[in-house]
Order: sequence, then structure tokens, then C-alpha cells
Amino acid sequence: MVDVVLVNPKYDGNIGSVARVIKNFGFYTLKLVSPYELKRDAYAMASHASDVLDACITYESLEEAIRNYELIIGTTSKPSRWHARMPSFSPKQIKDKIRSKKVSVLFGPEDKGLSNEELEMCDMIMHIPTSQEYPVMNLSHAVAVVLYELSDIGCDTIEQASREAKELFYKRCEDLLDLIPYPEHRKHKTLLILRRVIGRAGVTSEELRNLQGIISKIELVIR
Amino acid sequence: MVDVVLVNPKYDGNIGSVARVIKNFGFYTLKLVSPYELKRDAYAMASHASDVLDACITYESLEEAIRNYELIIGTTSKPSRWHARMPSFSPKQIKDKIRSKKVSVLFGPEDKGLSNEELEMCDMIMHIPTSQEYPVMNLSHAVAVVLYELSDIGCDTIEQASREAKELFYKRCEDLLDLIPYPEHRKHKTLLILRRVIGRAGVTSEELRNLQGIISKIELVIR
Repeated sequence: MVDVVLVNPKYDGNIGSVARVIKNFGFYTLKLVSPYELKRDAYAMASHASDVLDACITYESLEEAIRNYELIIGTTSKPSRWHARMPSFSPKQIKDKIRSKKVSVLFGPEDKGLSNEELEMCDMIMHIPTSQEYPVMNLSHAVAVVLYELSDIGCDTIEQASREAKELFYKRCEDLLDLIPYPEHRKHKTLLILRRVIGRAGVTSEELRNLQGIISKIELVIR
Repeated sequence: MVDVVLVNPKYDGNIGSVARVIKNFGFYTLKLVSPYELKRDAYAMASHASDVLDACITYESLEEAIRNYELIIGTTSKPSRWHARMPSFSPKQIKDKIRSKKVSVLFGPEDKGLSNEELEMCDMIMHIPTSQEYPVMNLSHAVAVVLYELSDIGCDTIEQASREAKELFYKRCEDLLDLIPYPEHRKHKTLLILRRVIGRAGVTSEELRNLQGIISKIELVIR
């Protein structure tokens, strides 16, 4: 479980954008330090995540907001050798360390980020690897990247064609070359290229069925 | 190399936000279909990435914008069994397939996304794994997540304490327990716990030096 804590955010639009991102990645809890009267801009940017905004909780102090978490993670766009800011980990590195823990991720205000004092209250420091030329991300973009990485929503696995189906397909190709007829001395290489291309593409069952359909039709016409 | 192509974006603010994200992740090229007169909002949201906006190129048609790429990737928040939208890959899955290729990633308009016709012009379909409850991301957030994943900017590797340094540290701890003196029958377990905690934390050289400093001081005071 990952909760987002925005520390002294300045713009309503950003808070709304963050609410949307929270819902996009299947999370729910948004906490704000310090108290804040949300205005129309926040709801406009939240779009269909107004429920996240309605449920967001405001705290007088950061201490109150981060009680009861197993891990508190502070974010910064300025990692450094200063002890409050090191060692810093990328979102990918953090993901492995937080599995099934109750985690809060803290984001500082748009202009200054979290202070050293605030970062000292955290168990770990997170930094999104960015260009040295322009390392500072927009607040809600940073939240988007972090929640994308920490979310457990998986993509559908794509059903790959089976080894058997592929071998059958190559056999059909070979039969077709015999039927055309294809120059004998080039057959071997051509079949190998087909095998390489199909293999590299990671072809799905449905795609293979379609390709096989082409061959069937060609054979039908020729015969 | 990854270029971003925005197809019929509707809001200047989003275009500016996308420019910022492009620069944040060390990319540079933004292409727009179709021609568009960028207004103040775009530059406000681009912040320090006005150079990306200034250099952005507009095209009359998508065909023109995507000439000369080795791979054209279309994004959608609505993957489906419809052939133009499948198979779809996550940004993580795509990353492995595009290494050192000249790639363009297409994003559709905020309200409708890329059409089936536009997706049919692409070599691969990408979909960010999101909650079924609210799968549609803000345009610039989607770009942020995709570029974060496709960027080659690495995080600094954190210098772990060497095996040798850690063993030396454990030896110092053992000596300290002898000095306190710590109950003999609990020593073994306590040292093991120390080893487990330090090991699991992935302690850095500097952190270990600091911890060792504490032990030195304690020994000094006792002796």
C-alpha cells in the first residue's frame, strides 16, 4: 500500500493532477500538509478522480501525516553528498524494497522540494533519474512516474505462439516453397530467415493463424 | 533515440508540459501534427524547456511526421482485441525491443487518443498498465511515464561496503561485546542479528565508517 503525502504544495491544479494519477495507478490515499482549502482548479485537473480529492486528508504537521507507516520515503530532485540526501535510490530500486509494506511517499513544494529537515524524517530517499541539464520535474509528473513504478498493476501477458505451432508454420512454408517452386539452393536460407524473423517478433497464436491462412489460400489458388 | 509525436493535441499547457518532460529525461525532439501556433500557456508549462518548444516541428500530416523512423510506436489507453490495438506492450516490455533504434512514440489527442487508422500506421502498440477503474491518464503524465521508462539515464550506483569492511565491522562489534561485557550465551545470536540487519540494509562504505566511529568512541570511553 502506497500513500502520497504532498508537503506544502502551492498549486491547486497540481493537487488535482496528483489525485488523478493516484487513481490511474490503482491507489487511493492522498494526504496534504498543511491544511488547504481545495478550489475549483484542483477538481478540474482531477477529472474523474474527484473521489480521491474528496477523501484527501489534511494535517497540521508532517509528523502527524506520517504516523503509522512502516516505511517513509522522501523524494528529491537534488540528491547530494549531504547526509540527509544520501544514499538515494531510483523508483525501480525502491520497488524491490517496499513489497507488501505500508509506505508513504513524500513530495515537497513545487519550488523548493523537501527540506533537509523533512528528508531527515524519512527512512529512505528516492530520486528519479533525470537529465543533469534539467533535473527538476513538474510535481504531478514526478508523482506519476513514482506511482507507475510502485504500482502492482501488470500488463496482460501476451499469448505467444507455441513451439509446436511455429514448427507447423515453418513446415507449411517449406511445402509452399516446394509448390511455387522456389530455387532449391535458396530454400534453406530463406526458411532460416523466416524462422529468425518470426522468432524475433515473438509472434502470437492469432498472428500465426492469420499468416497460416495466407499460405492456405495461396496453396488453394495454385492447386 | 526517442522522438515524441503529439497528434492533434488540444491544449497548449499539455504541449508545454510534454516539452518539459522531454528535457527532464534527456530527450529533445517534439513533433506536432497538425500545425499549431504555440501560445503563452505552452511556454509557461514548459518552464526551463522553452528550447524544446522553440525547436518543435509541426507537420501537416502524420505520414510526414513519422518518415525515417526505424520503429513507430503508437500509444493507447484502450487496448482491445481489435486488431489495430493488439498485441499491446507495456513501456517496460517495449524498452527491451527498441535499444539503439531510431524510434518515434505517438500520443493522440487528450479526449479520444489515437484512432484505429493512426494505430494501424504503427509498428507496435504501447499501453501503460493502469487501473481499470480509471485507465485514462493526462496526456503529459503518459508522456512522462513513457520517457522515464525509455530513458537511458541511470541512477548513480551506490557504493556498497565491501565484504572485507563488513567483516571487520562485525569483528569490532564482537570485541565490543567482550568489553561491555555482554552475556556469553547471547553473544552469538546478537552478532548474527547485527549481521542480518547490516546485510539487508545494503549498507554503504560511508555508513559503515560512521557506525565504526561510534564503536571506537565507546571503546575509548570504557578503556
